[in-house]
Amino acid sequence: MEKSRFAVGSHNLSQVDGHAGKKVIASLADIAPDLGKYIIEFAFGDIYSRDGLSLEEREMITVTALLASGGCEAQLEVHINGSLNVGISPRKIIEIFIHCIPYTGFPRVLNAVNTAKKVFSERNIKMNDCP
Amino acid sequence: MEKSRFAVGSHNLSQVDGHAGKKVIASLADIAPDLGKYIIEFAFGDIYSRDGLSLEEREMITVTALLASGGCEAQLEVHINGSLNVGISPRKIIEIFIHCIPYTGFPRVLNAVNTAKKVFSERNIKMNDCP
Amino acid sequence: MEKSRFAVGSHNLSQVDGHAGKKVIASLADIAPDLGKYIIEFAFGDIYSRDGLSLEEREMITVTALLASGGCEAQLEVHINGSLNVGISPRKIIEIFIHCIPYTGFPRVLNAVNTAKKVFSERNIKMNDCP
Amino acid sequence: MEKSRFAVGSHNLSQVDGHAGKKVIASLADIAPDLGKYIIEFAFGDIYSRDGLSLEEREMITVTALLASGGCEAQLEVHINGSLNVGISPRKIIEIFIHCIPYTGFPRVLNAVNTAKKVFSERNIKMNDCP
Amino acid sequence: MEKSRFAVGSHNLSQVDGHAGKKVIASLADIAPDLGKYIIEFAFGDIYSRDGLSLEEREMITVTALLASGGCEAQLEVHINGSLNVGISPRKIIEIFIHCIPYTGFPRVLNAVNTAKKVFSERNIKMNDCP
Amino acid sequence: MEKSRFAVGSHNLSQVDGHAGKKVIASLADIAPDLGKYIIEFAFGDIYSRDGLSLEEREMITVTALLASGGCEAQLEVHINGSLNVGISPRKIIEIFIHCIPYTGFPRVLNAVNTAKKVFSERNIKMNDCP
Repeated sequence: MEKSRFAVGSHNLSQVDGHAGKKVIASLADIAPDLGKYIIEFAFGDIYSRDGLSLEEREMITVTALLASGGCEAQLEVHINGSLNVGISPRKIIEIFIHCIPYTGFPRVLNAVNTAKKVFSERNIKMNDCP
Repeated sequence: MEKSRFAVGSHNLSQVDGHAGKKVIASLADIAPDLGKYIIEFAFGDIYSRDGLSLEEREMITVTALLASGGCEAQLEVHINGSLNVGISPRKIIEIFIHCIPYTGFPRVLNAVNTAKKVFSERNIKMNDCP
Repeated sequence: MEKSRFAVGSHNLSQVDGHAGKKVIASLADIAPDLGKYIIEFAFGDIYSRDGLSLEEREMITVTALLASGGCEAQLEVHINGSLNVGISPRKIIEIFIHCIPYTGFPRVLNAVNTAKKVFSERNIKMNDCP
Repeated sequence: MEKSRFAVGSHNLSQVDGHAGKKVIASLADIAPDLGKYIIEFAFGDIYSRDGLSLEEREMITVTALLASGGCEAQLEVHINGSLNVGISPRKIIEIFIHCIPYTGFPRVLNAVNTAKKVFSERNIKMNDCP
Repeated sequence: MEKSRFAVGSHNLSQVDGHAGKKVIASLADIAPDLGKYIIEFAFGDIYSRDGLSLEEREMITVTALLASGGCEAQLEVHINGSLNVGISPRKIIEIFIHCIPYTGFPRVLNAVNTAKKVFSERNIKMNDCP
Repeated sequence: MEKSRFAVGSHNLSQVDGHAGKKVIASLADIAPDLGKYIIEFAFGDIYSRDGLSLEEREMITVTALLASGGCEAQLEVHINGSLNVGISPRKIIEIFIHCIPYTGFPRVLNAVNTAKKVFSERNIKMNDCP
C-alpha cells in the first residue's frame, strides 16, 4: 500500500536524517511536494527498508556515492549527519572519504572533508589529534 | 621505505584482487610501469593498509565509488572479483548496487549489475531466486 | 497498491520500450529481480504515469539526461528505440543531440549519435540527405 | 558571415535569456570576451536558430542537460529563467526535473529544484498547492 | 565567411587528426552531417586556429579534458593519434595521463592508458623499458 | 624514505601553490591530517617531481582536469593561483579554458572563467582589452 511505503519511509528518514531530513522534505512542500513524497516512499521506504545491509552500511554507501558523484555537497551534509545519527564515528566517516582518494582523486575528497568539517563543527565534535 | 610500501601494497593487492590485480599491473609493464607502481604503493600500500575500515568495508566503498563515477566498468569488474575474494556474498554486492539507485539513478546501477552478471558467470556463481 | 503501480509501470514500459524494455527486465530476473521491479514500479509506474508532460516530451528528457550523464550508451540505445516508439522522428532525435553540444561538448554528442546510428540501422531507418 | 551569426545569436539570446543572458556576456567582457562571442555565435546563433525543435523544446533539453551534468547551477538559473521567458510554466519546469529522478538520482534533482525555488521567488512566482 | 571557417577548420583537422579525423566526419555524413560541420567550423575552425597556445599544448589540453570527462575513449583514441601527429612523444602522452592521477583517480587514468596502448600498438610504437 | 617524499612534496607544494597550498594543508590538520600528508607525499612528492613535463605543463594539465571534472571550483582556485605562480600568463590561463569548450561544453568553462575572475581580482590582475 502507498500509505505503508510512506509510513515506513517516514520512520526510516527520521531514524537516519532526523531533523535535517524533515527540513529537506518541508522545503519541497510548496514547490515540488511529490519529490519529497518519492524520497520518502522510494528512497527511504523501498530501499532503506530492504534486508541485506545494516543501516550503518547503507549510510557508508550513501556518502560514498554522493562524494563520487560530485556537486552533491548539500546532500552529503545531510548524510554525514545521517551517518553520525546511525552510529558511525567521525573518524570512520573521514576514513571512508580517505579510502576514496584512489578512485575519485583528491578534489572530491577535499570537498567531502570540508563538508564534514562544517557538520562536525555544528555538532561540536572534536577529533582528537592522534594519528 | 619505498620497498616497504611496495611490499605492503603487493600483499594487499594479492589478497583483494588476486590474479586479476596482477594482470592489470602486468598489462602496464611495457607502457606505464610507474602507474602500476603507484597503484601498488599508494592505493594498496598506503590506503588499503590503514586502520579504521575492514577489508570488506573497503571493497564496499570501492565498488560504490566506481559505480557512481561512471565509465569505470573495467575497474568495477576487478573489484567485484575483489569483493568476492574478501568474503562479500554475491547477494550483498547486488544489494550495495541497489542501494545506490536513489543517489545515482538506474543507468549506472544497471551497468554495475551487468558487470556483476559477467563476473558471477565467469566464477560459476548462481544466485538462487528467493526474493 | 503495489500491484497497481507494477501494472501501470508494465503498461508504460511496453508502450515506450516494447521488446527492448522487456529484455532488460528479463535479463535481471536471475541476478537482481528487485532492480527490474523498481524500474517498472518507480520509473515507469510512478514517474512515466504522471501528468504534465507528454510521452514524447518524457522521452526527449530521458535521452538528454542519458547523453549528458555519459557512459550510459546501453540505456540510451533502449530509449532511442523508445523515442521512435512514441513517435519522435529520427531527424528530431538527432536534433535533440545536436542541441546538447553547447552544454555537454562534442564527445558525449558523438557517442549519442553513434548509438542512434546503430539503432537506426537495426530498424532499417535511412535519413535522407537534405540539410 | 560572422556578423550575421552574431546578430542572429544576439537576437536569440535576448529572446531566451533576456537580461540574465546579457549580464553573463557583459561579465565576460573584461576577462574572456571571446567566450561571450562564442556563446552568442555558436550556442545562440548556430544552434538555437536551427529548425526541428521549438524554442520551448530547446529550453527543456537545455535544463535537462544542465541538471544531469551536475555543478552547473549558475547556468541552470539562467535557463530556468529562459524556460519561463519562452513560455514554459513553472509547474512544467518542476515536472521536467521530477522526470529526471530515475536517470540522475535524487541529489541532482534536489539541486535543480532548489535553483528553481530561488528563481521562482525572485520572479514572485507562487505554485499553488494542488497535488 | 562560413566557407572560410570551414576551410580553416578542415586544414586544422587534417593537421591534427589526419585520416582518423576525416573518418569521424565521414561517418556522420548520412546521419548528422551538421555535427561534422560544427566540429570542423567551431572546434577546429574557431578554437584550434586561435593564438596563445601551440598545437602541442592544445592536444595536451584536449586529451586531459577527455580523460577527466570519462566515457570518451573513442574521442581519446582520435586525439592520442592527434597528439602523436603534432609531435608529442608517446612517453609524454603517458606522463600527461600519470599527472592526472591525483585529480581524477586511477580508474580514468587506467582507461586512458589502455586506449594509448591500443593506439601505440596500431602505430607499431614500442616504449622502451627504461624507467 | 617517507621523510624524503614529504620533503620533496612540501618543496613542490610551496613552489606551485605558495600560501594557498599551505592553507589547504593546515585546514586539514584537525580533521584529516593524513589527507594533507598524502597530498604532499603523493600528489606533490611522487607526481609533481617526475620528469617529462615542465611545472608549467603540469599546471596546464591540472587546471584542465579540474575544469572538466566539474564541481572542483575550490581546487581550481588554488591551481589558477598555482598556474600564475609558475609563470603562466593570465591570458594563457583563459586560453586554456576556452580551448576546453568543444570538449566540456560552455557551462564548465564559464565556471572556470568565473573562478579565474575572482583570483585575478584578488591579485589585482587586469587583462587589457585587446582582442
